[in-house]
Amino acid sequence: MTSNFRHVALIGKYQASSAGAIGESSRQALDGIARFLQHQGCSVAIEVETASNTGLLHYPSLTVEDIGARCDLGLVVGGDGTMLGIGRRLARFGTPLVGINQGRLGFITDIPFDTYQATLPPMLEGDYEEDSRPLIQACVMRAGQVVFEALAMNDVVVNRGATAGMVELRVEVGGRFVANQRADGLIIASPTGSTAYSLSAGGPMLHPSIPGWVLVPIAPHTLSNRPIVLSDATEVAVEVVSGRDVSASFDMQSLASLLHGDRILLSRSAHCVRFLHPQGWNYFATLRKKLRWNDGDP
Amino acid sequence: MTSNFRHVALIGKYQASSAGAIGESSRQALDGIARFLQHQGCSVAIEVETASNTGLLHYPSLTVEDIGARCDLGLVVGGDGTMLGIGRRLARFGTPLVGINQGRLGFITDIPFDTYQATLPPMLEGDYEEDSRPLIQACVMRAGQVVFEALAMNDVVVNRGATAGMVELRVEVGGRFVANQRADGLIIASPTGSTAYSLSAGGPMLHPSIPGWVLVPIAPHTLSNRPIVLSDATEVAVEVVSGRDVSASFDMQSLASLLHGDRILLSRSAHCVRFLHPQGWNYFATLRKKLRWNDGDP
Amino acid sequence: MTSNFRHVALIGKYQASSAGAIGESSRQALDGIARFLQHQGCSVAIEVETASNTGLLHYPSLTVEDIGARCDLGLVVGGDGTMLGIGRRLARFGTPLVGINQGRLGFITDIPFDTYQATLPPMLEGDYEEDSRPLIQACVMRAGQVVFEALAMNDVVVNRGATAGMVELRVEVGGRFVANQRADGLIIASPTGSTAYSLSAGGPMLHPSIPGWVLVPIAPHTLSNRPIVLSDATEVAVEVVSGRDVSASFDMQSLASLLHGDRILLSRSAHCVRFLHPQGWNYFATLRKKLRWNDGDP
Amino acid sequence: MTSNFRHVALIGKYQASSAGAIGESSRQALDGIARFLQHQGCSVAIEVETASNTGLLHYPSLTVEDIGARCDLGLVVGGDGTMLGIGRRLARFGTPLVGINQGRLGFITDIPFDTYQATLPPMLEGDYEEDSRPLIQACVMRAGQVVFEALAMNDVVVNRGATAGMVELRVEVGGRFVANQRADGLIIASPTGSTAYSLSAGGPMLHPSIPGWVLVPIAPHTLSNRPIVLSDATEVAVEVVSGRDVSASFDMQSLASLLHGDRILLSRSAHCVRFLHPQGWNYFATLRKKLRWNDGDP
Repeated sequence: MTSNFRHVALIGKYQASSAGAIGESSRQALDGIARFLQHQGCSVAIEVETASNTGLLHYPSLTVEDIGARCDLGLVVGGDGTMLGIGRRLARFGTPLVGINQGRLGFITDIPFDTYQATLPPMLEGDYEEDSRPLIQACVMRAGQVVFEALAMNDVVVNRGATAGMVELRVEVGGRFVANQRADGLIIASPTGSTAYSLSAGGPMLHPSIPGWVLVPIAPHTLSNRPIVLSDATEVAVEVVSGRDVSASFDMQSLASLLHGDRILLSRSAHCVRFLHPQGWNYFATLRKKLRWNDGDP
Repeated sequence: MTSNFRHVALIGKYQASSAGAIGESSRQALDGIARFLQHQGCSVAIEVETASNTGLLHYPSLTVEDIGARCDLGLVVGGDGTMLGIGRRLARFGTPLVGINQGRLGFITDIPFDTYQATLPPMLEGDYEEDSRPLIQACVMRAGQVVFEALAMNDVVVNRGATAGMVELRVEVGGRFVANQRADGLIIASPTGSTAYSLSAGGPMLHPSIPGWVLVPIAPHTLSNRPIVLSDATEVAVEVVSGRDVSASFDMQSLASLLHGDRILLSRSAHCVRFLHPQGWNYFATLRKKLRWNDGDP
Repeated sequence: MTSNFRHVALIGKYQASSAGAIGESSRQALDGIARFLQHQGCSVAIEVETASNTGLLHYPSLTVEDIGARCDLGLVVGGDGTMLGIGRRLARFGTPLVGINQGRLGFITDIPFDTYQATLPPMLEGDYEEDSRPLIQACVMRAGQVVFEALAMNDVVVNRGATAGMVELRVEVGGRFVANQRADGLIIASPTGSTAYSLSAGGPMLHPSIPGWVLVPIAPHTLSNRPIVLSDATEVAVEVVSGRDVSASFDMQSLASLLHGDRILLSRSAHCVRFLHPQGWNYFATLRKKLRWNDGDP
Repeated sequence: MTSNFRHVALIGKYQASSAGAIGESSRQALDGIARFLQHQGCSVAIEVETASNTGLLHYPSLTVEDIGARCDLGLVVGGDGTMLGIGRRLARFGTPLVGINQGRLGFITDIPFDTYQATLPPMLEGDYEEDSRPLIQACVMRAGQVVFEALAMNDVVVNRGATAGMVELRVEVGGRFVANQRADGLIIASPTGSTAYSLSAGGPMLHPSIPGWVLVPIAPHTLSNRPIVLSDATEVAVEVVSGRDVSASFDMQSLASLLHGDRILLSRSAHCVRFLHPQGWNYFATLRKKLRWNDGDP
C-alpha cells in the first residue's frame, strides 16, 4: 500500500516555551508518528526547530520553506496556534496540512492523538475532505509607504494602549467611508477567526464557505456599532484617528505599533491554507463540541 | 428628453390600514409624482389597490402581476414594508424598483419625497446604481408534502406560542445536523433582513454582497448558541422538535402554523429583487443615518 | 436525636403531567424519604396531590395551605419549577423549604437525591444556611380596577402575540416615566429569576442579596434599550401602549391577557420564600456548575 | 435674599490639556458665574489650579482640600470627568457638588451653561434634589502589603497588556471563590460607572439606589461568563493569576501595574459623593437623552 503523499513533514509545537522544553513524552509521540508514517510508505522529514527541540535528529530535517518546496503534506502535532503559524507560512506553497491534537480538541487540529493510527491510513490514500481557508493580507501604510506587512489566518486586531482611553478608528470599505468607531479596539476576523477572539467580543460565527470578514468593535462607545460582515472581495482600510499607544496584531503573533494617520489595508490573499480532514469530518460537529451545544443546560 | 424606463408603475402604501384610509395629502403626493413622470416622457400606470385607496382613477390601473408583465420600472412611495411586499411579488419578473419615503428614511426606500424632482430625472435616463437583493425561498414540509410556500426578502422567523415556554428546533445545513436549539425562536435573515428584526435579537449586519443568511436564536437557553452566518448556496432545514403553538412567519407578513415534525426548508430563490438607487448612493451612509453612528455620544 | 423540625411535609413534582403519571420509582423515592424522616424523629405528611399522584396514601395528606398552617418544614422533591410553585404558595406562612433534585442540579433544588441521607440529618438539627428570596407582587389594573393578581418568584414577562409585531410598553418607576420600549416583550426578573429566562434574553445575574429587579427588553427595537437594575423598594408600572394579543405571564405559570391601556404594577411582596441549604452551600458554586465556568474552553 | 450655601467654590475643567490652555471664553464664563454667585449673596473662591489656568486671580483661591474644609458647596464647570475627579477628592469632607456643563449634557453635570441663571437661585435657597453616590475603595495587596490605594466613583478596570493575550483573574466575594475568568479584562463598576465603560462592554445599567457593583468581563473566553451584580456590603477580591503587563486603572485616571499574585480588594468607601440637582431632576430623563431612547428608530 502506498501513500498519495510521498514526502511528509512532521511539525511539532511551533513555539516551544524554551529550547529543549518539549518533554520526553512529546519526543516519543512524534517519533512514533514518524515511524508509523514510514510504515505507510512515506518518506518522513522533521521541521528543523521541532527536530532540535525534541532531539529527533535521526530523520532528515527541513526548514518550513523547504517543507513547502519539497513535501506533499505537513503533519502538525500541537494545537490550533501551531497550525495557524505553520499554515500562514506554507500557504504560498499550497502544501496541505493535517492536524493532530495532543491535548484538547481544536477547531482545526481535529484528530485526537489516540486515534491517528486508525485515522491517517485512509487519508494518506486520498480519502479525506479538503477544507480551504482564506488568509487576510494586511499592510500598514504610513505617509504613503508600506511599513509593515503580515498574513493572518484568524484576525487582525487594532488595540488601544493598555492604559489609554478609547481609540478612534476610521473604517473604509472599497474606498467608501463606513464609520468612525470609538472603542477599545476593532477585530477584523476571517471565518476561521470568527470562532476565536471575535466570538468573545460578541461577533457571529462565519461558516468557512462565507467569502467575507467580520468587523467586530471591542467595547464600542456607540451601542449601535454592531458587528458587520463584509465581502472579502473589497479592500478594507482602517485608519488611526486618535488614541495612545495604538497597535495592530496579526493572529496575536506579530505586532505593529501604529501612529495617528497610519492606515491598515486588508484584502484577501491570493493564497489559501489547505486543511485535510478525515472523511465524515463535520464543521458543525466541532462547533457543537467546542461550544458545548446540546450538552445539558443552561 | 426621454426616459430609459418607458412604462412606469406607481405603487403606494401596500397595506392601507383601511379602505380609503390614504389621506388627501398622500393622494396629492402620488398625483404629483405621476404628473412629474409623464413630464419626463414616461407612460404612468397606478397599482390597482393604490388607485382605489387614493381615488386616483384617471390613470390606467394595473395589478401587481400586470405591472411585472408590462412595466419597465416600479416606483414605490411608502416605507420599507411596502417595498418588501412589492419586491417579493415582482421578483420573478425582474422589474426594478425605486423607493421614495414620505416619512423617515428607510433602509431601502432611500429617496426623500422632498427631493424626488431632482433625483429621479437622471435615474430615468439610466444614471443609477443597481442593488440586487436575494430572496429566501421557503416551504413547510409535513409528512413528505409541501403544505406552505413563501418568499421572504427579510427573514423567516420560527416562534414559540406567546404563552408557551421554549420551542426546540433541530437545524440542519446541507443535510448535516447543526444543533438542537431551545429558545423563544429562530430568525433566518437575509442581508436585507439583517438590519431589521435580526439586529434587535443580537445578529450582525450582513453587507448585501454577502451570499449568505444569518441564523439568530431569540433568547437561547444555551448561552453559546450564537448567531451563525451560513452560505445561501446550501439548503437550511429547521425542524420543530417540541413546543406549543409554534409558527413561522415570512417577512412578518404571511404565517404558517407548525406541528411537531414539520420541516421548514430554506434556499436561495432563483430570483432577486432589483433596487435602483441614485448615483452616489452608499449602503454605509444609510447605516450611519439609521443607526446614528457618529452622532455624538454615547 | 430529635429534629428541630417536628412536622415535615413532603411535596413531589407539583405538576404531574397527568394523574397517576408519577412512576413507581418516584413513589419509592418519596416513600424512602418519608421513612427516613420518621427515623429522624419527624412526623411526616404528604401534600395531597403528591399523595394521590403517587398512591402514597398511608401517610397523612395535607393541602398546601394546611402545610403552611401546620408544618415546620417543606421538603420538595423535584426541579426548580416545582420549588417555585410551592414557594409562592407557602411564602405567606413563612414555611422554610428544602429542595432535593432527582435529575440534574437546579439553581435552588440543590441536594442530589443520592446524598440526602447524609445531608438531611444535620439540617434537621438546625445546621443549615438560610437563603431568603423576595417575591414580586404583581397586579393588572384596567380602568382603575384590579383585574388580575399574582406572585412571582422568578419573573413577570410581558409578551407580544406570537404572530404579532412588536409591543410598545411604557415603563414608569415610582411614578416617573422611564421609557417607551418597542420590543418583543419585557422581562422583570428578581435575583432568583435573573439566572433563568432573563439571562437568555441578555440580562445580568443579580446576587440574591441585591434588593432589586432587572428589567430586560426582549429583542428591543432601539439598540440602546439595555437591561437596567432598579430598586425593589419602588413600584414599577408597565403600561401596554400598543401591540396585538399582548399578555403577561408570571413565573411562566399563570397568565393574563392584556388590553391597550392596561397597567401592570409590580412591587416587592411583604413575604419572602425561605430556602434552607446544607452548611457550606455556596451560591457561586451553583453558578459555576450550572453555567459551566472553568470547565475547559471556549 | 441669602443663600443656604454661604461659601461656594468654583472649579473649572480639572485637567486642562496644558497650562493656560483654558481659553478666553471659559475664563469669561467662570467669571460670569462667580459674579452671579456673589449677587446671590455667596462668598466665592476659585480652586487654585482653575485660577492659575484661567488667570482669574482677583478671587480668593483654595486648594481642593481647603475647599473641602471651608466651603459649603462646590460648583463644577466642565464635564463628567471633571466632576468625578473633584468628587473623589471632596467625598471625605461631605461637600456637595453642582455640575454645569458647557458642552454636551453629562450623566452627572446636568445643568446647561445657558440656563444657570434661572436654575441656580432656587438651588442656593435649598430647593434641590440630593443624589448621593457611593465610592469604591480599592487597594492592591502584594505579599501581604498594601502597595496602592485609590478611590473610584465609576469603575476599577483590570486590563491585560495591549499586546498580550488574555489575563486570568480569580474573583472572590466575601472570601468565597466565584470564578477564574480569562478575558481581556474585568470591570467592577458602581451604579455611576454603569452608564460609562461598563455599558460599552455589555453591562447593565444600575440605578443609583442599588447598593451594589456590577462585574463585567471584557471579551470573556467563556461565553457564559456574564455580568453579575453583587452587593457592595461584601468585599470583592480580584487576584491576578496569569497574563502579561496586567494593570488596574481607577476611573481611568490613576493606574497600578500588577504582578501575578497581586490582589485588588474592593469595598464600599465610608464616604459618598453628594450631587445636588435642580428640583424635578430625573435620572431617567438623563438616560433617555444620553442613550437616545424614544428618539425615532431603530
